[in-house]
Amino acid sequence: MTTEKIPDIIIGRLPIYLRALQRLADAGALTTSSRELGELVGISAAQIRKDISQFGEFGKQGTGYSISFLMDKLRDILKVDRVWEIAIVGMGGIGQALAHFNGFVDRGFRVGMAFDNDPKKIGRKAADFIVLDAATIEDEISARGIKIALLCVPAASAQEAADQLARAGVKAILNYAPTSISVPEDVRVQYIDPVTHLQRMTYYL
Amino acid sequence: MTTEKIPDIIIGRLPIYLRALQRLADAGALTTSSRELGELVGISAAQIRKDISQFGEFGKQGTGYSISFLMDKLRDILKVDRVWEIAIVGMGGIGQALAHFNGFVDRGFRVGMAFDNDPKKIGRKAADFIVLDAATIEDEISARGIKIALLCVPAASAQEAADQLARAGVKAILNYAPTSISVPEDVRVQYIDPVTHLQRMTYYL
Repeated sequence: MTTEKIPDIIIGRLPIYLRALQRLADAGALTTSSRELGELVGISAAQIRKDISQFGEFGKQGTGYSISFLMDKLRDILKVDRVWEIAIVGMGGIGQALAHFNGFVDRGFRVGMAFDNDPKKIGRKAADFIVLDAATIEDEISARGIKIALLCVPAASAQEAADQLARAGVKAILNYAPTSISVPEDVRVQYIDPVTHLQRMTYYL
Repeated sequence: MTTEKIPDIIIGRLPIYLRALQRLADAGALTTSSRELGELVGISAAQIRKDISQFGEFGKQGTGYSISFLMDKLRDILKVDRVWEIAIVGMGGIGQALAHFNGFVDRGFRVGMAFDNDPKKIGRKAADFIVLDAATIEDEISARGIKIALLCVPAASAQEAADQLARAGVKAILNYAPTSISVPEDVRVQYIDPVTHLQRMTYYL
């Protein structure tokens, strides 16, 4: 791997390649080409070759990529060759669904904690853990050393919860609340907002 | 609006601007600048000005943008100056949560139908509609003229459901299943996969 700074837009495509490689592996394939991968993910073969070559020479002219080798490399680059524990904040419908989401398995993540501020939810079991009081976010998350959180609270509570998470030492927030949040510079935020994806498609209707 | 083809990457940023403008409007602001907007969304002021100017001259040097005017223009461009009815396929945890999601309101969408293939779920009420049998997707969706669907089935069923939706006349699919799907050329797909967003952040941890 080079030590130069890789543009974030390239980093953002690697998980897409990894997911497509998993799909090929699940179907029993052992090797693939940038052309096949490109058709699966809707990105040009040239772009894929260029992206992957940023990190080294992982393919062979003529024979393409070994799927398991390339997957291992991508997992290593993305640091998902391990299992990250994540915390869910807000156990409404989305939070509950994520607590039971089986798509994290084998992809580097495991939900380890969940918080809510509703007394009716605190102390209840969700998946294989107990929902904790949101007032204890800072203590509980920092004690556990969790660096990643799924923010699933209503829009009006999102900024306050994000502040708590930042103080707890969380460095990556996946925000499901339909609003922007401000965080310190060393904290990254990604947004999951179905409406922005839908609006990107209605333009073409 | 120009009639030239606007790159999809720009279209993809417009919903982000619209969401940030809503946030400013909710806070009582009447005007904004590309600099302020840029700080909210993490995109450079120059890029924002360039993106918006693709569609016309909506701002004034020195006074910036009228928030309500720019929001109207963006809604018009993205075709969310109306309400699109959407169908949910798969009423597991995520589907249920989306049926009750209040983030669609005033943003151009309303869930109008939901489908599942589980006899225990079919016929039950979810939000303000009855869950229909997934076997009737083609008839029900084409009869209603719905063009947009949220695909919330398990990965193993995603391709089959996507095929049904395409045959029903759906032109935009938001795929929550953790797998890629193939669709005809005139159907657009966007993916909601928390893991790809998380993996994009673990790279930096």
